[in-house]
Amino acid sequence: MRVAVLLYDGFTALDAVGPYEVLCRLPGVSVTMVAERAGPIRTDTGELTLVATRSLASVERADVLLVPGGGERGTTATMANTAVLDFIRRVHRHSTWTTSVCTGSLILGAAGLLRGLPATTYWASRPHLADAGAVCAPGRFVEAGKIITAAGVSAGIDMGLHLAARLSNERVAQAMQLAVEYDPDPPFDTGSPEKAGPELRRLALELLADVAREAEGPRPG
Amino acid sequence: MRVAVLLYDGFTALDAVGPYEVLCRLPGVSVTMVAERAGPIRTDTGELTLVATRSLASVERADVLLVPGGGERGTTATMANTAVLDFIRRVHRHSTWTTSVCTGSLILGAAGLLRGLPATTYWASRPHLADAGAVCAPGRFVEAGKIITAAGVSAGIDMGLHLAARLSNERVAQAMQLAVEYDPDPPFDTGSPEKAGPELRRLALELLADVAREAEGPRPG
Repeated sequence: MRVAVLLYDGFTALDAVGPYEVLCRLPGVSVTMVAERAGPIRTDTGELTLVATRSLASVERADVLLVPGGGERGTTATMANTAVLDFIRRVHRHSTWTTSVCTGSLILGAAGLLRGLPATTYWASRPHLADAGAVCAPGRFVEAGKIITAAGVSAGIDMGLHLAARLSNERVAQAMQLAVEYDPDPPFDTGSPEKAGPELRRLALELLADVAREAEGPRPG
Repeated sequence: MRVAVLLYDGFTALDAVGPYEVLCRLPGVSVTMVAERAGPIRTDTGELTLVATRSLASVERADVLLVPGGGERGTTATMANTAVLDFIRRVHRHSTWTTSVCTGSLILGAAGLLRGLPATTYWASRPHLADAGAVCAPGRFVEAGKIITAAGVSAGIDMGLHLAARLSNERVAQAMQLAVEYDPDPPFDTGSPEKAGPELRRLALELLADVAREAEGPRPG
C-alpha cells in the first residue's frame, strides 16, 4: 500500500512529518514524498528542507494521498498550480483515501474535491473553506466518504492514527500511538482558537506573518 | 538566538521536526539543521530525507542544542561517533540549553553529559539511561540544570513548548501552541507503555523492528 505525501515550496514540515511518522511503520505500507520535481523542497520558514524522491509525473497512482498545508504564499501558489491540481485529481480518482492537513484542504478544494462536503482546515483559514464549496465541520479531523481533512499542523498526528486504523486495524494503530509515544501533555492549554482567546489569536497570527516575511528574504547562512 | 538540531543517519524525523515547528517562529530565534557533513540525511525508515545546511565543524556555538533520537542502529552508531560526541560537548560548554528527544538522551549520555542527573528517554530505552549514569525520571520531559530530555518522539512537541516559554515567555509559547493548533485529541489512549499494556508494547516493538530491518535493505524506488 503506497502513501504519497505531496510536498511543495512553502509547505509546513510538521503537517507532512506528523502523519508520515504514524503511517510509515504500518505493515505493508510505504510512504513516498512527491513533488512537481523530485529533489529538495523548502518549507514555509525557509529554514528546513525535505527531499521529494518522486516527481508528480512518475506517480500514476497511490492508495493514500496526503496534502500538507503551508504558509499563505505556498498554499496560494499551489492552489493555482495546474500541474499539482491535475495530479491531485488524477490520484484521487483511484485512491482509497485522499487526505489533507491544515490548509492542505484548501488545495484539495482548489482541485474541486470538496464541493458540498464537510471538511476542516487551519483554524485561521476556516472562512476559506466556503470558497471551495465545503462546509466547515468541527473536530481534529473530518471524514467525508474517502476524503479526510485534518485541522491545523499537529492535527495530522491525530488524523494519522485514525487513518492507521483504517489501513491496518485498531490494534496496530494503537501500537503505533505507543511507538511514537503519543501521550500528549502540553504545558499549556491554548491549542484551539476558542481556548486561546482573541489576544493569543492575534499574537499567533503576528508570529506567523513575521516568519513568512523573513522566509521571503535572503536565506540565512 | 540560534537553535542547532543535530541530524544523523537513522534519526527519527518527528523527534527533530516537532520541536523545530514550535521553536522556528519564536521572535529572534533561528533553527539550523547540522550534521557531520552538510547535505541530505536519511531518517530511520529510509523513506524520508532531511537536509542539513551546516556541518558540525562550521558550527562553533549554539544557544540551544537539540539531539533527536533514532532507530537502534542510528542511535548506537552516533553514540560511538567521536566527531559527534566532541561536537555535543563543545556546544554544550557554552549553550543556554542542551536538549534531547527520545533516544537522543542516550547520545547526550554517551557524551558524558547526564552523569548523576535525572533524565528521560524513549519508553523502551529507559533501562539504558543507567548506562550513562543518569537517573530515569517520570514525565514528558525532564529539566535538570540546563539539560532538558524529552520522552519518545512526539514528546518533543511538549518539550518544545516548554522551551519556547524559556526562550521567549509564556504568552509567546501559548501563541505558538495555537500557531501549530496543538490541541491533541488522539482517537486512542495508548500512548504510554503503562496505558498500552504488555500486548501492545510487544506489537509496537515488533513493528519498529520490522521497519528497521527494511531500512537496512535496498532503498525503495
